[in-house]
Amino acid sequence: MKTEKNIPYKIYLDEQEMPKKWYNVRADMKNKPAPLLNPGTLQPMTAEELGAVFCDELVQQELDNDTAYIDIPQEILDFYKMYRPSPLVRAYCLEEKLQTPAKIYYKFEGNNTSGSHKLNSAIAQAYYAKKQGLKGVTTETGAGQWGTALSMACAYLGLDCNVYMVKVSYEQKPFRREVMRTYGATVTPSPSTTTEIGKKILAEHPGTTGSLGCAISEAVETAVGKEGYRYVLGSVLNQVLLHQSIIGMETKAALDKYGIEPDIIIGCAGGGSNLGGLISPFMGEKLRGEKDYQIIAVEPASCPSLTRGKFAYDFCDTGMVTPLAKMYTLGSDFIPSPNHAGGLRYHGMSPVVSQLYHDGLMEARSVEQTSVFEAAEQFARIEGILPAPESSHAIRVAIDEALKCKETGEEKTIVFGLTGTGYFDMMAYEKFNNGEMSDDIPTDADLEIGFKGLPDIPEK
Amino acid sequence: MKTEKNIPYKIYLDEQEMPKKWYNVRADMKNKPAPLLNPGTLQPMTAEELGAVFCDELVQQELDNDTAYIDIPQEILDFYKMYRPSPLVRAYCLEEKLQTPAKIYYKFEGNNTSGSHKLNSAIAQAYYAKKQGLKGVTTETGAGQWGTALSMACAYLGLDCNVYMVKVSYEQKPFRREVMRTYGATVTPSPSTTTEIGKKILAEHPGTTGSLGCAISEAVETAVGKEGYRYVLGSVLNQVLLHQSIIGMETKAALDKYGIEPDIIIGCAGGGSNLGGLISPFMGEKLRGEKDYQIIAVEPASCPSLTRGKFAYDFCDTGMVTPLAKMYTLGSDFIPSPNHAGGLRYHGMSPVVSQLYHDGLMEARSVEQTSVFEAAEQFARIEGILPAPESSHAIRVAIDEALKCKETGEEKTIVFGLTGTGYFDMMAYEKFNNGEMSDDIPTDADLEIGFKGLPDIPEK
Repeated sequence: MKTEKNIPYKIYLDEQEMPKKWYNVRADMKNKPAPLLNPGTLQPMTAEELGAVFCDELVQQELDNDTAYIDIPQEILDFYKMYRPSPLVRAYCLEEKLQTPAKIYYKFEGNNTSGSHKLNSAIAQAYYAKKQGLKGVTTETGAGQWGTALSMACAYLGLDCNVYMVKVSYEQKPFRREVMRTYGATVTPSPSTTTEIGKKILAEHPGTTGSLGCAISEAVETAVGKEGYRYVLGSVLNQVLLHQSIIGMETKAALDKYGIEPDIIIGCAGGGSNLGGLISPFMGEKLRGEKDYQIIAVEPASCPSLTRGKFAYDFCDTGMVTPLAKMYTLGSDFIPSPNHAGGLRYHGMSPVVSQLYHDGLMEARSVEQTSVFEAAEQFARIEGILPAPESSHAIRVAIDEALKCKETGEEKTIVFGLTGTGYFDMMAYEKFNNGEMSDDIPTDADLEIGFKGLPDIPEK
Repeated sequence: MKTEKNIPYKIYLDEQEMPKKWYNVRADMKNKPAPLLNPGTLQPMTAEELGAVFCDELVQQELDNDTAYIDIPQEILDFYKMYRPSPLVRAYCLEEKLQTPAKIYYKFEGNNTSGSHKLNSAIAQAYYAKKQGLKGVTTETGAGQWGTALSMACAYLGLDCNVYMVKVSYEQKPFRREVMRTYGATVTPSPSTTTEIGKKILAEHPGTTGSLGCAISEAVETAVGKEGYRYVLGSVLNQVLLHQSIIGMETKAALDKYGIEPDIIIGCAGGGSNLGGLISPFMGEKLRGEKDYQIIAVEPASCPSLTRGKFAYDFCDTGMVTPLAKMYTLGSDFIPSPNHAGGLRYHGMSPVVSQLYHDGLMEARSVEQTSVFEAAEQFARIEGILPAPESSHAIRVAIDEALKCKETGEEKTIVFGLTGTGYFDMMAYEKFNNGEMSDDIPTDADLEIGFKGLPDIPEK
């Protein structure tokens, strides 16, 4: 095995080297992300309006476009120490297998029981809820990573956790459900009879297996109607990207420790929480004109919001109960094919990531599912980690870039985010193993259906 | 959170601090483990006889009772670097929750895709097979952790891997099966029509769902009958304990680095591979009279080989095709209840562990499954790791010991082995969450059935 003498397989920061602040990339953006709008008035959502749904300190973080560094509370730092720092791994084995001169690193966020990076924001949101004296939080979950992460955070803090799980997932992914229950969460299949909107949907569509949009609506209704509860969300929001900046901060600290300068930074993008967190300090340098990096967002060809979507105001949910966000979107009516990278099946994209992409500060690529699983299988066999389908989108492009280096002879340094593990995605792997996987790329006509549903926002 | 200033939450060895040798505890044992016997002649198995089943270098390791330290080949060290060192975690959160003066550490072996410590020996066995120029290896798997680990090792080395998986597991644990297939292994439900013994059993019992004993027989038959193949086993054997000494060596190095002296060392025990590996360097000190430790093996009350078994020669498998090993055994006819700690449902015990226990160098405790899952749930919620049911046996006793310290005020240092994660055991957690778990402790009459089947070995 060819290795560099001074660079270990895995770079772990010491506890005292771990970042103590989150970085808020909005502070360095010339073009700030557009504000959330009240869908009734089309005016920017006020702190008071947001405070009915989110807890107070998170509202401040959501609206703060100016403070570059925000102290991570000690209690959250303590929790982070249980599973962080996550390793920055040098993919020596993959490099050798590909016979590439490229140097490949990945930041692995899967070494915690939630199986993904989602825990970084779950503990923060749960902490602020607890600090505000709330009794509990509500949320929705589809694939289940976010619900699992939130359950863990709430168990740790002694906070009640109500998860609305899309009924089809509740029934088809019983193991995810049981992990949440083991962490003490109440998991309700959605639509349910616990909410007005749930009852209404059940009356109209008695046999429905639910949707993420419906689950969001139920979670919000429950939070707003229940004394001492607020709603929390695992992606898209500015506050979530802020918390996830811990990924990028650690990555940068680890690279700096060994004097490594990345050329390319790659992350998968669904709602944008991992990508936005991973790239944030590097994007900060780029925005301040200190450094330049090639930054690539990777999305599924089956749900191509950046590469084929529109930059427009849209609802964050399919139920149209949330504020409007300006983002790259396929329209909240767009129904992605039920492919298995559940965490990337979102019609929109974080407003921060959307603005950065719109301003030409990063690229986006869409990749097809079959080629994603080919990369996943190759990676698993060589690097020994079974990646989540979401994460494997980034692996696909990292391998593609490394193979380009093989052709050109360039020794580029590639860093990608490995967001999580695939233990609960074996049904997808089974499809791939059996040669039954499809790519499900939407036609232009499919996309038009979603675009038609975009809300009509008058220009200022 | 009360923490000790100089002791981090997680102790990671640097790459250069990682052990480069395995430690062979047999070298320091005054009473060596009894040799394997040929069941036909009742004479000790020769290297030649063993060489028909195992590859040559492993046979040497199996028979070597004298060499204390054996160099780990560089290729295996390289592989270890992909997922090792595993962290030695200070359970600050658990200590606080229990309000105990005890200091609790656990060595966490679950941070690799196989989900357990099994990979430590899988890569070693696959490496020696590859080095001997073999085409592939065969094995059996029940719960699936060993099969997964071996599949990973074989994928890495480009070795063919045939896994006979007990049919009921093959059908009821499709996700484990798919992980193995993703790693390129051929997974055959056992009994199968690929072997004579499989055909015979299928003819006699057309509807059988298989057993581990049958799967072992099929794997051995395939290895012996196929040019360029050998059989490999994930526990019990001396060679496996040798490879697993990496767990204990790392643990000891990490403790030494911070000047920590353990009082109690706890490990779960099925075939003995994790326990034997974890305790080996500490037991070495104890055997050499340099130090003293309280060492506790924890086994399920449903399969109590150390606490209620006999120290006698017995077959290693239920099919009675293997050599005889002198060990604590419930008899190869003993059928443990189908509880869910699959990795601990073994009628026998490693001859090394058995001899050490017989000589009074360690204790053994049996714990009931319901209390094990209570400990597992508590641990998951506090320490954030979802433990495997097997590992949770050690958690149970670690918590019990910490609570004793609370009563006495003693500040004991407790180290236990957390062998793996429970992602593929959610059916067991579901039973627990639903209050449907049972303990299934065998009666004395149940045990007599197994003891009756012990082979009759004349005294020398």
